[in-house]
Amino acid sequence: MTDYVRNFNDGSSAERDILGGKGADLAEMVRLGLPVPPGFTITTDVCRHHLAHGAPPPELASQVARHVALLERAAGRAFGDADDPLLVSVRSGAAVSMPGMMDTVLDVGLNEETVRGLAARTGDERFALDSYRRLVQMFGETVLGVPQELYGAALDDLVRETGVGRDVDLSAPSLRLLVDRFLEITVAHGDRPFPQDPREQLDLAVRAVLDSWSSERARLYRRHHGIADDLGTAVNVQAMVFGNLGPRSGAGVAFTRDPATGQLGLYGDYLPNAQGEDVVSGVRDAVPLARLRELDEAAFLRLRSVMHGLERHYRDMCDIEFTIEQGRLWILQTRVGKRTPAAAFQIAADLVEEGSIDLDEALRRVSGDQLAQLLHPSFDPGAPRTLLTRGVAASPGAAVGRVVFDSAAAVARAAQGEAVVLVRRETRPEDLPGMLAATGILTARGGKTSHAAVVARGLGRACICGAGDLDVDPDSRRMTVRGGPVVQEGDLVSIDGGTGEVFLGEVPVAGSVVARWFDGEAVDGDLVDAVARLVRHADAVRTLGVRTNADNAEDAARAVRLGAEGIGLCRTEHMFLGERRTLVQRLILADSDAERDAALADLLPLQRADFRELFAAMDGKPVTIRLIDPPLHEFLPAERDTEDERVLAALRRMHEDNPMLGLRGVRLAIAVPGLVAMQTRAILEAADDHGSSGGVVEPEIMVPLVATAAELASVRSEIEHVADTVAVERGRSVAYRVGAMVELPRAALTADRIAEHAAFFSFGTNDLTQTTWGLSRDDTEATVVRRYLDLGILARSPFETIDVDGVGALVRTAVEKARAARPGIGLGVCGEHGGDPESIRFFAQAGLDYVSCSPFRVPVARLEAGRAAILRPAAHAALG
Amino acid sequence: MTDYVRNFNDGSSAERDILGGKGADLAEMVRLGLPVPPGFTITTDVCRHHLAHGAPPPELASQVARHVALLERAAGRAFGDADDPLLVSVRSGAAVSMPGMMDTVLDVGLNEETVRGLAARTGDERFALDSYRRLVQMFGETVLGVPQELYGAALDDLVRETGVGRDVDLSAPSLRLLVDRFLEITVAHGDRPFPQDPREQLDLAVRAVLDSWSSERARLYRRHHGIADDLGTAVNVQAMVFGNLGPRSGAGVAFTRDPATGQLGLYGDYLPNAQGEDVVSGVRDAVPLARLRELDEAAFLRLRSVMHGLERHYRDMCDIEFTIEQGRLWILQTRVGKRTPAAAFQIAADLVEEGSIDLDEALRRVSGDQLAQLLHPSFDPGAPRTLLTRGVAASPGAAVGRVVFDSAAAVARAAQGEAVVLVRRETRPEDLPGMLAATGILTARGGKTSHAAVVARGLGRACICGAGDLDVDPDSRRMTVRGGPVVQEGDLVSIDGGTGEVFLGEVPVAGSVVARWFDGEAVDGDLVDAVARLVRHADAVRTLGVRTNADNAEDAARAVRLGAEGIGLCRTEHMFLGERRTLVQRLILADSDAERDAALADLLPLQRADFRELFAAMDGKPVTIRLIDPPLHEFLPAERDTEDERVLAALRRMHEDNPMLGLRGVRLAIAVPGLVAMQTRAILEAADDHGSSGGVVEPEIMVPLVATAAELASVRSEIEHVADTVAVERGRSVAYRVGAMVELPRAALTADRIAEHAAFFSFGTNDLTQTTWGLSRDDTEATVVRRYLDLGILARSPFETIDVDGVGALVRTAVEKARAARPGIGLGVCGEHGGDPESIRFFAQAGLDYVSCSPFRVPVARLEAGRAAILRPAAHAALG
Repeated sequence: MTDYVRNFNDGSSAERDILGGKGADLAEMVRLGLPVPPGFTITTDVCRHHLAHGAPPPELASQVARHVALLERAAGRAFGDADDPLLVSVRSGAAVSMPGMMDTVLDVGLNEETVRGLAARTGDERFALDSYRRLVQMFGETVLGVPQELYGAALDDLVRETGVGRDVDLSAPSLRLLVDRFLEITVAHGDRPFPQDPREQLDLAVRAVLDSWSSERARLYRRHHGIADDLGTAVNVQAMVFGNLGPRSGAGVAFTRDPATGQLGLYGDYLPNAQGEDVVSGVRDAVPLARLRELDEAAFLRLRSVMHGLERHYRDMCDIEFTIEQGRLWILQTRVGKRTPAAAFQIAADLVEEGSIDLDEALRRVSGDQLAQLLHPSFDPGAPRTLLTRGVAASPGAAVGRVVFDSAAAVARAAQGEAVVLVRRETRPEDLPGMLAATGILTARGGKTSHAAVVARGLGRACICGAGDLDVDPDSRRMTVRGGPVVQEGDLVSIDGGTGEVFLGEVPVAGSVVARWFDGEAVDGDLVDAVARLVRHADAVRTLGVRTNADNAEDAARAVRLGAEGIGLCRTEHMFLGERRTLVQRLILADSDAERDAALADLLPLQRADFRELFAAMDGKPVTIRLIDPPLHEFLPAERDTEDERVLAALRRMHEDNPMLGLRGVRLAIAVPGLVAMQTRAILEAADDHGSSGGVVEPEIMVPLVATAAELASVRSEIEHVADTVAVERGRSVAYRVGAMVELPRAALTADRIAEHAAFFSFGTNDLTQTTWGLSRDDTEATVVRRYLDLGILARSPFETIDVDGVGALVRTAVEKARAARPGIGLGVCGEHGGDPESIRFFAQAGLDYVSCSPFRVPVARLEAGRAAILRPAAHAALG
Repeated sequence: MTDYVRNFNDGSSAERDILGGKGADLAEMVRLGLPVPPGFTITTDVCRHHLAHGAPPPELASQVARHVALLERAAGRAFGDADDPLLVSVRSGAAVSMPGMMDTVLDVGLNEETVRGLAARTGDERFALDSYRRLVQMFGETVLGVPQELYGAALDDLVRETGVGRDVDLSAPSLRLLVDRFLEITVAHGDRPFPQDPREQLDLAVRAVLDSWSSERARLYRRHHGIADDLGTAVNVQAMVFGNLGPRSGAGVAFTRDPATGQLGLYGDYLPNAQGEDVVSGVRDAVPLARLRELDEAAFLRLRSVMHGLERHYRDMCDIEFTIEQGRLWILQTRVGKRTPAAAFQIAADLVEEGSIDLDEALRRVSGDQLAQLLHPSFDPGAPRTLLTRGVAASPGAAVGRVVFDSAAAVARAAQGEAVVLVRRETRPEDLPGMLAATGILTARGGKTSHAAVVARGLGRACICGAGDLDVDPDSRRMTVRGGPVVQEGDLVSIDGGTGEVFLGEVPVAGSVVARWFDGEAVDGDLVDAVARLVRHADAVRTLGVRTNADNAEDAARAVRLGAEGIGLCRTEHMFLGERRTLVQRLILADSDAERDAALADLLPLQRADFRELFAAMDGKPVTIRLIDPPLHEFLPAERDTEDERVLAALRRMHEDNPMLGLRGVRLAIAVPGLVAMQTRAILEAADDHGSSGGVVEPEIMVPLVATAAELASVRSEIEHVADTVAVERGRSVAYRVGAMVELPRAALTADRIAEHAAFFSFGTNDLTQTTWGLSRDDTEATVVRRYLDLGILARSPFETIDVDGVGALVRTAVEKARAARPGIGLGVCGEHGGDPESIRFFAQAGLDYVSCSPFRVPVARLEAGRAAILRPAAHAALG
């Protein structure tokens, strides 16, 4: 006969499939000899049977009866006993954690009779009645289908009638009245009255937990997280223990190391004469765990010994929930403890040092996201602050400065030594000087991949985008939050680019010692040592290269210091900002071939000098240079900013309703005579100059927005023609490679044919995501993406973490086709996903050669590339 | 030993692979006993050998020598004979036709000696010298690499020096001088001097033809047409014959049936004492072929017998080029003749009647494009006309009317009985009344899938889009063509939507009798009988259903008359135009839930009435209704047209940089509370009303722009909720189905998961093309698509014919995944490609259930669906 029910003392953490996560952990603790309140687990087989047949297996009833009897013996109390009743909790527990998705019923076993026994035993009638009314409500809602708001309304009525102000102040007689009203509500609105028979309560509660596996929200959750519907949940039935039975009782939470810093020692909180939920809810002030030693030394020593044992067993910092019932210690839950990023690195490195784990395991236990947080300055966590509004956390870091509303003001104030925060509705390329001058950037529109966000991450500036409540009025030099205060130019604000919070006034900031170490400063300390050790190990094990996106020598040099092995994306259009815009404007407005050629001729020496500097900064490393990509009208002033008739005519002529899908990328290269030739000449002459002065470089010329092989063939042939000419002029040829940016679905689908003309591909996953989803990143952050995240239609934004099923499928197709057509082809990624930890793991699995990311993400990418090499391919969760 | 050279009398049309198309056809004619000038074919094996080894096989030289000797014997003249020289043509001829892609050299064999012999024999020194200078030039350019412009410049110089005005007027002495100058140019700029040895000329010409297979343009052509690079070309060497040897000589072109009407009989032109190129170039006026009987009855009878033989042999109308050299008839070429659409149907039906071919074969010989031309009125082909400008041929048909520049003027003038042509920079939804009032539509922007084009095809109006030379100035009520005349409002223009030509003034129009027959009129005549017979056969053999895109009962009823079997796409947003816009504006501007709900409540009865009419028109047929798709701001007036602060604020708030990728489709359904519920209620109540009055309908509710399964699940659940409510209210449930429009790459890539929630898919290939290519159809017609077509980077616009490799691959993936996940799922297409003949064949092969197209394309789709059923799957040509 199948064992549908398993005692906690008959199992281990290896049996998650059958016992669920919670059941397996409880069994594991029992196996370790820890004092766990007795109980049993109804296995996931029951749930699967229930799913398949609409009812639990017939054998279940008798097996539960047997285990209840065992439980009564172990607890020394009987279910339904009028004097000293056994109460139990009934909780779900699937193999994969689904927090909050399924039902729990506590205090099962209370009824009109046992509530009196509980009052007598605890000497607290109020507590007993409060537990009873909570059971009736929880049972009514969860098991009997009574609408939640009915109980809430009855409680509110009673609080009003009694005039006590808060429900926790209700007296025992009032609670008795409340129980009666709750029982009446349940009769009137439930599928049946509240059952007085404890066994009936138990059976119905188990059934409700099984049903909750198939609830709509649980199904939605599983769909998003790629969890199979037929796994099923286990149900755990466990004796209740009470920490509120007088001064020798209490409840607490304990950590085996400091979750803030990772330092060894006992940390936690203890609340005498209280239940666990009181500690969590903070109704009363807890005392530091060390005080327990004074209150009950025996219990404290027992707890300390348990904690040591658990850490040894789990080889990690543990987080423990415990209850002391009249001097007796009960462990209710243990799990690997949550920790700050600093503690994560510290603990992982310390455990290696202590010999508990090896370096691979240490690497598994830290993440790129944690490292990213360590790299940025942060607000002093204890400092007071006034929240002004929230937006999208677009580029991490803490920044404090005076509000300015345009680039000129930012530059002017920064020149006088003031820290400024640049606030714009959205940023455009001409805002770059202001962004450089600012310590932080705040916009009302756009998301994580908007211009502001991308540039800010490139510059390492804190940035919040899409603060939709913010009404920015640059003309009157102020901004207002809907229904909030007015902020004038010059007012101080503090922004946290890691959380998206904007604060009024100054919040004190602490710098990042880890960032200073990466940047080559001689700093030391435990944390720096820990980070260094793990990043070096990541470098040793990773096979994925890490390059950087950099458009100038300064960024490039910084990225090299941070560990970049080359440039994966140099956006040449960024070289045409500032004063050079006028040259591009001349090119656009040229009325004749001669005017056009003259403008190009003037651009050539500037571009050549740019590339010379870049090659010098990256000497010996690969440098991928993308030909100019954006629509040229982006270089013209806005219509409102000009009265020049020629410019206005050009703006009208060049207007596009959807410029993202317009005349840009390779289409420009083909449409504007001389553009490719000028850029190619600048690249090759600079490379030749660099070589003449003893340097080494083989530039990689990347053609953007390719959709067809013929486009690339056409541009490549022009590049080759220029290269031949330059070789004749210079008396020697310069080595270079031509490749394509793969950022359109069609390029991925026809990658084999495009690869015939490409020495390398670089996936531009920003644009590839936009076209694959038909979703503009800037336009839809607030209207679509955030709404979908709120509704659970999306689990993550596809612009932050690569959409494995859609965009990822195209990447895999392209990799396969490209390698089949051209086995030695170089394959990298240069979209924003190149700096996202989960995406990096996908790119490693997909077989790319490198990722390229902002300079400040390079350490993160190194760490995650190392983790990708040692983590087993995970089943990726579906985005939607 | 391999036979690398084959005499024309040793082969047949079955040997195209080895002899090439031209060689095989020449051999076939010889086999039929037709008088073909003798010659031989150098097989494609030689070209392949040349490709693989860089040189022809060594045996070739001796084999050519042997065949030259045979040729001399057959022709009765010797190569290089000073008195009566044999001259030959050297032409390429691949198995697959590549017109204009490879080289030809004529008159090989002429030199300083033989040119005198030719002059003597023909009695025409001028002719001989002209032939010689043409040979030197053709040989210099093709074989010796002399730049073309050098010969042209020398000719221009001589024409100027002699003052004759035209090169055809140059005297024999002048031509002698020209030959000398050409020979000097060749010495100075060629790889070698012009060879005097005829055999050397021949060998070099053959080599040049072989090399031309690998020229860049030939390679590009093959890439676009999916022709393998290693097929190789054959080379045909054939004795030249001369029709200009006196009154008993001549040249002509003949057709076995009338290429204009298809009527039986001999048609053609004959030019006495002339070469073939004179007939083609029209230098002199030819006489009707019948006159040949008077001039040379024997030759005429011989020709007539040849023509009968050829028609019997090819079982089709043949087009024959012939030369009569001193009374002797030579057939130079025969091919199946080009014909008008009317002739195509007439000939195919007549050949069935005559028992030459069966109905399947007849269907293969007509095309949807031909039928489309027959369905539209056309300009009288003989009438004079003045071309004003050209644009994109966006909706076929001929229209004449007075120019108006806005919708109101169109309506006003049409109300007074005037025919008008609406001219706009581009059209918007509010132009619909004007488009309805107009006989034709002309725009300066946009392409075949622009708003103007789509609506015009839906209405059956002639339309030309993207006439980029046109400067439309509605304020001053006139338009100008760059460097051309000014057209004022009220001026007459004539537009040909089938060719894209705009004419000044009135060109006489002939209506379409075929269209009247399809629309149910009692018309008859040979042509109507022929079309009817073939369309009925197409209906009998096709498996692909044909539905229509229709947004109102009138269009739907017309489509049914034209043979539509259902509605594949009803765009509900088209129901919100005109006065109803203000209701949608109320919805957009609503400040409260109550205002929003009130606006929706007012829309409900209007929508319900729309659907009731639609269901009545389509009784018993499937009707697919798409939920509202476009961004709502499209319903607001343009910024320049309003001063309403609420509207202006909404425009600012709702602005999107790339609305195509913004808040639209299913995203609207999720973002705007009540919208889906209102539309669903209107559909289901209308369906119930229709059912109550004895009708039959099972509406298919289509959710647009789906990217994820969760989106569809969310909307479907709302639809089901409304359906349950309506069922309760009405006391019975209404059958309906919910499906998704698949128009994003991600939907195709995750079609299996989306199919779990969809009873049907309809591919929206317009948007799917835009996102797969990252190419906005409206913005890039002139700047990208047309430029790419001109440059040969694209062979066809992907918006006209489905891009099989990119978009088509996604369609195939989606079909496969959808059927695997849900075997009975309904699959159709409703993009513009649903009316494109080549695309229809692809959709049939991909296994779709139906195509849906504009009402006026329904007959075309029926015909092509029939053809798809009997045509073997063709190797589709690559788009790029």
